[in-house]
Amino acid sequence: MAVNFPTITADALHPVAGVKLGFAQAGIRKADKKDVLVVLLDEGATVSGVFTTNAFCAAPVTVCKQHLAAQSGIRALIVNTGCANAGTGELGMTNAQATCDELAKQLGISANQVLPFSTGVILEHLPMDKLLTGIAPAIENLKEDNWYNAAQAIMTTDTLPKAVSRQITMDNQTITLTGISKGAGMIKPNMATMLGYLATDVAIAQSDLDELTRQVADQSFNSITIDGDTSTNDSFIIMASGASGVRVEKNTAAWHEFAAALQSVATELAQLIVRDGEGATKLISIVVEQATSTAEAKQIAYSIAHSPLVKTAFYASDPNLGRILAAIGYAGVADLDVAALELYLDNVHVATRGGRHPNYTEEQGQAVMNQSEITVRVVLNRGTANATVWTCDFSHEYVSINADYRS
Amino acid sequence: MAVNFPTITADALHPVAGVKLGFAQAGIRKADKKDVLVVLLDEGATVSGVFTTNAFCAAPVTVCKQHLAAQSGIRALIVNTGCANAGTGELGMTNAQATCDELAKQLGISANQVLPFSTGVILEHLPMDKLLTGIAPAIENLKEDNWYNAAQAIMTTDTLPKAVSRQITMDNQTITLTGISKGAGMIKPNMATMLGYLATDVAIAQSDLDELTRQVADQSFNSITIDGDTSTNDSFIIMASGASGVRVEKNTAAWHEFAAALQSVATELAQLIVRDGEGATKLISIVVEQATSTAEAKQIAYSIAHSPLVKTAFYASDPNLGRILAAIGYAGVADLDVAALELYLDNVHVATRGGRHPNYTEEQGQAVMNQSEITVRVVLNRGTANATVWTCDFSHEYVSINADYRS
Repeated sequence: MAVNFPTITADALHPVAGVKLGFAQAGIRKADKKDVLVVLLDEGATVSGVFTTNAFCAAPVTVCKQHLAAQSGIRALIVNTGCANAGTGELGMTNAQATCDELAKQLGISANQVLPFSTGVILEHLPMDKLLTGIAPAIENLKEDNWYNAAQAIMTTDTLPKAVSRQITMDNQTITLTGISKGAGMIKPNMATMLGYLATDVAIAQSDLDELTRQVADQSFNSITIDGDTSTNDSFIIMASGASGVRVEKNTAAWHEFAAALQSVATELAQLIVRDGEGATKLISIVVEQATSTAEAKQIAYSIAHSPLVKTAFYASDPNLGRILAAIGYAGVADLDVAALELYLDNVHVATRGGRHPNYTEEQGQAVMNQSEITVRVVLNRGTANATVWTCDFSHEYVSINADYRS
Repeated sequence: MAVNFPTITADALHPVAGVKLGFAQAGIRKADKKDVLVVLLDEGATVSGVFTTNAFCAAPVTVCKQHLAAQSGIRALIVNTGCANAGTGELGMTNAQATCDELAKQLGISANQVLPFSTGVILEHLPMDKLLTGIAPAIENLKEDNWYNAAQAIMTTDTLPKAVSRQITMDNQTITLTGISKGAGMIKPNMATMLGYLATDVAIAQSDLDELTRQVADQSFNSITIDGDTSTNDSFIIMASGASGVRVEKNTAAWHEFAAALQSVATELAQLIVRDGEGATKLISIVVEQATSTAEAKQIAYSIAHSPLVKTAFYASDPNLGRILAAIGYAGVADLDVAALELYLDNVHVATRGGRHPNYTEEQGQAVMNQSEITVRVVLNRGTANATVWTCDFSHEYVSINADYRS
């Protein structure tokens, strides 16, 4: 059902020097499925992350934050699917730490140089015997040219592995950016269980990478939604190995070039999640313009993106566009003057000054609704801030997937 | 699909002295369906209302507010289904006013003594010829014993007419409270297109009825949700004809008795909407206790009630209860200490101190999930405020209904 999902092949994913990946089938999720990923970074890499804002954040998220704060030089990541290790109290923390301990022991590094990640069912404990048994085989097959397998190893309800790779030239040298993501439901990042890992071979200062990571996440993974459910485990990590020898200094021309490339890879990775959203048949871009603040623009965009009535209308290709106006109206923006507002569906002018545009015809709306990719554009006429949010429609298949997920 | 919906018969709906109802089939919604309701009140009645908070509120909502503010003694209500007259700009206002003008003319009252209501598709103009033609036949069959027909006349995607009637004894006299409601989707009142009309024959001061109306609405129609979509047209009206001769004075024993009866009728009317929610197979009560404020308790209750993942799990009878913890966690309550929180499903203790309760078993959760009525109880341990919200599950049928509503 994925919407205009690009063909991704292992060949197209450039290795990133200084970053090795290995996987295992540990039987945590399903038999015969990759469900453990280990990433090993050469010494000296810089690593930044942003994490879920869910108060019920998973144990591995808490451990990640502690280990990043310790600034002891992150050397490895471990990801398991099949169990989120969230809503698991003290035993959850013990299990996340034990996972780091075991990986550190086998790699000869210290436990606080490891970042742990989990995704899957909440409120269940990690099957530690299976997970720990998976570590040795994952280390065994560590190699730089392993991104496609890595993308497969972090999938849960995803129907397709998600990866993006790009090379740019800076200082006459080739720089590589390669990333993978996963997530299909429980997606309203802030972060969505959305996991994203992006590696590059530039060298960059910790504080600069931290800044870029937040900035890039806001306009990619923090601008998508499938169902409005912010997961307990969302994590987005950028790793810079420095192996290319190219150093990116803040506010130089190279910085802007690198930031743009990083943003484009992250945005594409985030959009892949929406294209493969649970039951998705359409990709909807919601653009809100001329708001008083980015927060206000996002508030209205998310209100539209989360409305089950709007999403089912897109699924049905039904230009029942009053539902969009209703969602704008209940977004909770104070003093919203609906008489100043314009609504467009792609280039069709649907509503003006609080009502139906006099030239709008149902046939025009129908033609756009029949497409597989649609842009809803709302012009508020009250400020200069803009925001874009990407979402999908709401189908029978979404209900089937989420009613049957565990069974 | 309605959940434990009571059998409602015309005989069980007590007429309210001083309140007459008439209906018509004007062909606005579908051929051969009642789609116009007129209510006529004897002179001297007291009328209060609460309305949607949607910024895109419908033209009739604006007119209702103006006419109530004019304090010219409301004598009549008119409701049409099939078209919401929302997102209709200036022509929408003209049409709502013209409807009042015509009804007033035929009844020999003034236009600002009329309250107009519409429900149906947004962004389309009222078919005024059909609506105005429906007024005469509706006036023709005005009578006090017409509540069941009235309940049918305001239905849209409702599968069953909704009405509640009760009599209590005050001052050795029988007091009657009879009400009707409609709504099945676009329901998160504040208000949902939820319409509710409740009549009684007591006499009561305007300011006292205003206060009671807000209070009763908050704990009934403003505590239900089907899909989180706050409609453009939500309205809840209480009419007190005074015909019984019993006067209710503030803060007397009679006042408390009357308020309790009013609350119970309104709550039952609101719950009928959830029981008949689009695609509903279960009624879920979400009780949040020991919050720092009612607003905080409602915020968490609605976060759970709106989660598509929680709602599909209820539909599947799947005790995937971590989804409830996730929804609590992303509700946006500042400084929420998840380690202090308790979660119950009916009387089963599911989670304690941020994790799975040690005695909780999947079998216990499964047994409750199999029921058609379920209570989720969250104890926050951080204050003394409580709130209850009622919702339903999320089924394939919801998607079907809303993907096909207009076609």
